[in-house]
Amino acid sequence: MEIPPSSSSKTALLDAPLHTIGFEIEELSPEKVTGRVLITEKCCQPFKVLHGGVSALIAESLASIGAHMASGLQRVAGVSLTINHLKRADLGDLVLAEATPLNVGRTIQVWEVRLYKMIDQNLEKKILIASSRVTLLANMPVPENAKQAAENIKKYAKL
Amino acid sequence: MEIPPSSSSKTALLDAPLHTIGFEIEELSPEKVTGRVLITEKCCQPFKVLHGGVSALIAESLASIGAHMASGLQRVAGVSLTINHLKRADLGDLVLAEATPLNVGRTIQVWEVRLYKMIDQNLEKKILIASSRVTLLANMPVPENAKQAAENIKKYAKL
Amino acid sequence: MEIPPSSSSKTALLDAPLHTIGFEIEELSPEKVTGRVLITEKCCQPFKVLHGGVSALIAESLASIGAHMASGLQRVAGVSLTINHLKRADLGDLVLAEATPLNVGRTIQVWEVRLYKMIDQNLEKKILIASSRVTLLANMPVPENAKQAAENIKKYAKL
Amino acid sequence: MEIPPSSSSKTALLDAPLHTIGFEIEELSPEKVTGRVLITEKCCQPFKVLHGGVSALIAESLASIGAHMASGLQRVAGVSLTINHLKRADLGDLVLAEATPLNVGRTIQVWEVRLYKMIDQNLEKKILIASSRVTLLANMPVPENAKQAAENIKKYAKL
Repeated sequence: MEIPPSSSSKTALLDAPLHTIGFEIEELSPEKVTGRVLITEKCCQPFKVLHGGVSALIAESLASIGAHMASGLQRVAGVSLTINHLKRADLGDLVLAEATPLNVGRTIQVWEVRLYKMIDQNLEKKILIASSRVTLLANMPVPENAKQAAENIKKYAKL
Repeated sequence: MEIPPSSSSKTALLDAPLHTIGFEIEELSPEKVTGRVLITEKCCQPFKVLHGGVSALIAESLASIGAHMASGLQRVAGVSLTINHLKRADLGDLVLAEATPLNVGRTIQVWEVRLYKMIDQNLEKKILIASSRVTLLANMPVPENAKQAAENIKKYAKL
Repeated sequence: MEIPPSSSSKTALLDAPLHTIGFEIEELSPEKVTGRVLITEKCCQPFKVLHGGVSALIAESLASIGAHMASGLQRVAGVSLTINHLKRADLGDLVLAEATPLNVGRTIQVWEVRLYKMIDQNLEKKILIASSRVTLLANMPVPENAKQAAENIKKYAKL
Repeated sequence: MEIPPSSSSKTALLDAPLHTIGFEIEELSPEKVTGRVLITEKCCQPFKVLHGGVSALIAESLASIGAHMASGLQRVAGVSLTINHLKRADLGDLVLAEATPLNVGRTIQVWEVRLYKMIDQNLEKKILIASSRVTLLANMPVPENAKQAAENIKKYAKL
């Protein structure tokens, strides 16, 4: 009997830097990738506010994982990322992230990633804090030494 | 007698997420912020290649620290970041980063951050791997609970 | 009795470069700015395809007009623009544009602008062809020689 | 004997929207594309200041023409554009633009475009007013009905 892995160990396997900052991947499909992170010191700049670079890291990660799935588990490579930081999130806030495809082309994919902070305990109210666009080159052959990456995704994703 | 801190402990104090991925800040002035990172697993996406989100994190960090200094240690906040990923860097590569101001306005600052990988041991040849623009809102008052941040910068920077 | 102006003369008054390429502004409110353009040679690059710079021009224009209204007719200035070109539009296509605010802050506003091409006569089916983010500095004083600009907006806008 | 065309008629042939705003292309090579424009009403937003969308149009144009040459006259398509507006240029100012490649890859090219305003008659002093990055997909086959575009470039460019 296989024990379902925690979100945390799933993230560790799928994206090391994302795991390092405490992020936990939740939904995993070619149409949507989501997850959440509690804002600890590891995510903050010195003013105890969510570090804009951490928001960008989350955006690039979720978009890359989504594009990898949407390309049929071919290799993808980030071409560019843009992010607008709209509102601050503070130490202790819970932040949700959601990546969805804006366009899945044969060569180029563009994903939109939105970050929200929760403003009540029941997760019923949320505020958009950042919005990002990630452009990726898709459909590149997977090198032999990187086949394990696709295997890991298959364990967790709805493909 | 005060013992000069290592680059590593300096980075820990100035930018926690940057320290987490192993980056070490070197130069610190209102005209230039630089540093370096050896690409370990903590910096990589699953294909053993430098994670584009880590490049973005480095860019946002160096630009924010630079803008903080260039604004006379007022509080700054990232407004937006754009990054182009030009070449890959692999596990084991040494990456250098350099942030310089493109425009230091009273309200808005724009910084350019370039990432290079070194291609020989003597650090004489380098290849541009990513180029980023970070837009920041400057000259905001520093909140009481964040005064320590400015003190930490003063310890290390040429102001 | 005042005769309602055509969309074309309205655009001429509100945004000269936009008028030059044949664009016609329609809705005008602090929550939404829309318009349309028939793709003629004046909008195309040499391959008879909608010029990406024309898409960017439309995005910057609509976002600026919207931010001007959302700031209570203070002066606004574009800080940055990002645009993703997703699908091509060809000579003869009808393109619709829609700008909505992503965040209206006291100092900074961020607007999203989406461009669609219509794929039937009844305007019932449309395809997203470009998506842009425009960041603006708001709430600057209006110089004496530019007060007419606000007057022109007032004639046409729902404020 | 062939009479060398003016900059103006060259621009009309190579890029219609660019010609419409009065821009004149000068240098044309796979390593650099330059030109200039006198800021008239056709280039301005209602505050008599260079329209940010016109800057973006110039950037997309010069980068596309450059990428077209750098790809050996294959078809190119803009993927995304980012631009930072740094300083204003006013009605009557002379603006210079210069596009250079940041990276010419087999599939993706990234070009940097800088806009300057001249601040004396002798063109010896200039101020950076905008900086843009244009990402393009290169090396696509040229459709039959667009072969004339490549022929036009060949007339004027140093290839």
